Amino acid sequence: TVQREEIDDEMDGCDVTDEGGKSIYMVSDGTGWTAEHTVTAALGQFDYCLVDRGCPVSTHLFSGIDDVERLMEIIKQAAREGAMVVYTLAESSMAESARQACKIWEVPCTDILSPITEAVANHLGVSPSGLPRGAPGRNSALSEDYFKRIEAIEFTIKQDDGALPQNLHKADIVLTGVSRTGKTPLSIYLAQKGYKVANVPLVMGIKAPKALFEIDPEKVFGLTINPVVLQTIRWARAKTLGFHGEAKTSYSEMDHIRKELEYASTLFAQNPVWPVIEVTGKAIEETAAVILRLYQDRKNRCSMPRISKRY
Amino acid sequence: TVQREEIDDEMDGCDVTDEGGKSIYMVSDGTGWTAEHTVTAALGQFDYCLVDRGCPVSTHLFSGIDDVERLMEIIKQAAREGAMVVYTLAESSMAESARQACKIWEVPCTDILSPITEAVANHLGVSPSGLPRGAPGRNSALSEDYFKRIEAIEFTIKQDDGALPQNLHKADIVLTGVSRTGKTPLSIYLAQKGYKVANVPLVMGIKAPKALFEIDPEKVFGLTINPVVLQTIRWARAKTLGFHGEAKTSYSEMDHIRKELEYASTLFAQNPVWPVIEVTGKAIEETAAVILRLYQDRKNRCSMPRISKRY
Ligand SMILES: Nc1ncnc2c1ncn2[C@@H]1O[C@H](COP(=O)(O)O)[C@@H](O)[C@H]1O
Ligand SMILES: Nc1ncnc2c1ncn2[C@@H]1O[C@H](COP(=O)(O)O)[C@@H](O)[C@H]1O
Ligand SMILES: [Mg+2]
Ligand SMILES: [Mg+2]
Repeated sequence: TVQREEIDDEMDGCDVTDEGGKSIYMVSDGTGWTAEHTVTAALGQFDYCLVDRGCPVSTHLFSGIDDVERLMEIIKQAAREGAMVVYTLAESSMAESARQACKIWEVPCTDILSPITEAVANHLGVSPSGLPRGAPGRNSALSEDYFKRIEAIEFTIKQDDGALPQNLHKADIVLTGVSRTGKTPLSIYLAQKGYKVANVPLVMGIKAPKALFEIDPEKVFGLTINPVVLQTIRWARAKTLGFHGEAKTSYSEMDHIRKELEYASTLFAQNPVWPVIEVTGKAIEETAAVILRLYQDRKNRCSMPRISKRY
Repeated sequence: TVQREEIDDEMDGCDVTDEGGKSIYMVSDGTGWTAEHTVTAALGQFDYCLVDRGCPVSTHLFSGIDDVERLMEIIKQAAREGAMVVYTLAESSMAESARQACKIWEVPCTDILSPITEAVANHLGVSPSGLPRGAPGRNSALSEDYFKRIEAIEFTIKQDDGALPQNLHKADIVLTGVSRTGKTPLSIYLAQKGYKVANVPLVMGIKAPKALFEIDPEKVFGLTINPVVLQTIRWARAKTLGFHGEAKTSYSEMDHIRKELEYASTLFAQNPVWPVIEVTGKAIEETAAVILRLYQDRKNRCSMPRISKRY
């Protein structure tokens, strides 16, 4: 999916109808991230036609919509623009207003929150509060979980790129692999889920830190990637860094890449407890899912691998 | 919501029935993050009863479930455990199998992906591919967007905590505020959405870097927080860092906190273009939503603030 955001000025956020293609409005009384996440997953089902621009789509996120006037304005605008509307509205009267307005103005609408909230309500045998997040009077105590996540993020930032190998033993997860296998974004992704992550770059000709072999091998994950794809990524990287001549040659040259990946494979083979994760063609969140599945698996040895949380 | 994850060993991921409370199974042929995100939003509607443990809930995420045998095993297990099931399955035959199995074994089930996918299909006038993410043959090209996000994350990590003030002008967004207003986790959250973020800590008695006043003021955001809440957070912080005596006193002492917040307010008042964001009681993603709404607003001057993307 080729996706371009407002921030590079490629699109005027107000005047989308000019651009052709279909619009999806996402409306939330909260942040809108739930609607955005769900719509993005659904759009994954159409990327065969999105990528070659057979069916251009634009999404428009309206967050913090907690009064019926603005809600009506947005749905009216959707009607004018021929957009569909996806919404998450905690207050049942707001959700009902949206439903009715969509019906009247003939806007195709999908309520993302109500079906799951109702199912959970039936399951728990209690009623939903009907209060949007951020509503006054809502209890938003600083939980243990909140502090744990922040600590994980700060830990992870400090350990990035092999800094502080003396702290590897404090990490929950240690990632290792050659340059541009996605260690940094993956570390950050996992950190936001509450895991302290350290990453150790493998560079041919430079010895990996001793600590890597002294810590619990069950928490180390090796990353590997197809050499041709790695070259593409390294080219992009070299361009960004403004590399020229020598540096560029050895960094993104195929012969060097192959040797470096072989060096990594040999190291992985010498440490057979480390799972080796193939990252080629995987999004960061996909690799993260694979790693967390293995991590929880090793921890719990369940018959059915799962990630569990208690609320 | 008090939420505890597996990683602190407080719960055996396999044996949840012992613990009492209700289970929610989340099943995906992909990462499971969409289901998790949606369920977390829905659980927000029940936190009045979750927090005081009136209705304990545990969630169990099963990711990468792309064959019907494992799917059936999970639903059978849900039936045994009295769990409800929430699923996202791209292949229509898999979704249909889940639906039928839930019916036969009397498991309450909610399909999160199909309703939105069908609505989008109708809107676009094309059929969904039915291919789960990560399915062989799916096009997962390294998009411009992918590189932009990675660059944003790497940029943001390097600028954390006022490092490299000479790079402030390269940032899309600059956050400033006193210690523990959430600058770091917020920066990282925004970076993952593709924005290059720098953050500049305000410390009483230390002059803020000159660059902060030389860059485009439209991209600077001030963060402020209630002093009592800040003290709680600083206490937690001091404990984590192992502060004692002097340092702790001035850092988390109320008088010092009030003065430091006043110092920040004065600075904000001197720079009236900077929006001042109140972070008290807000989750990181909520503050991020507020900032991005203002950011896009200033950029586009729409009559209806929105964040737009093109696919
Ligand atoms: N912690 C929470 N408490 C109450 N409602 C929530 C919570 N988190 C999300 N929601 C609701 O779930 C929907 C999606 O939230 P958001 O992802 O912030 O747009 C919105 O209707 C929110 O009001
Ligand atoms: N890029 C994508 N292409 C195709 N399907 C996707 C994509 N992203 C998510 N999905 C589907 O959307 C659902 C939710 O994905 P996930 O959040 O990874 O569990 C799953 O059924 C995925 O197979
Ligand atoms: Mg890195
Ligand atoms: Mg910080």
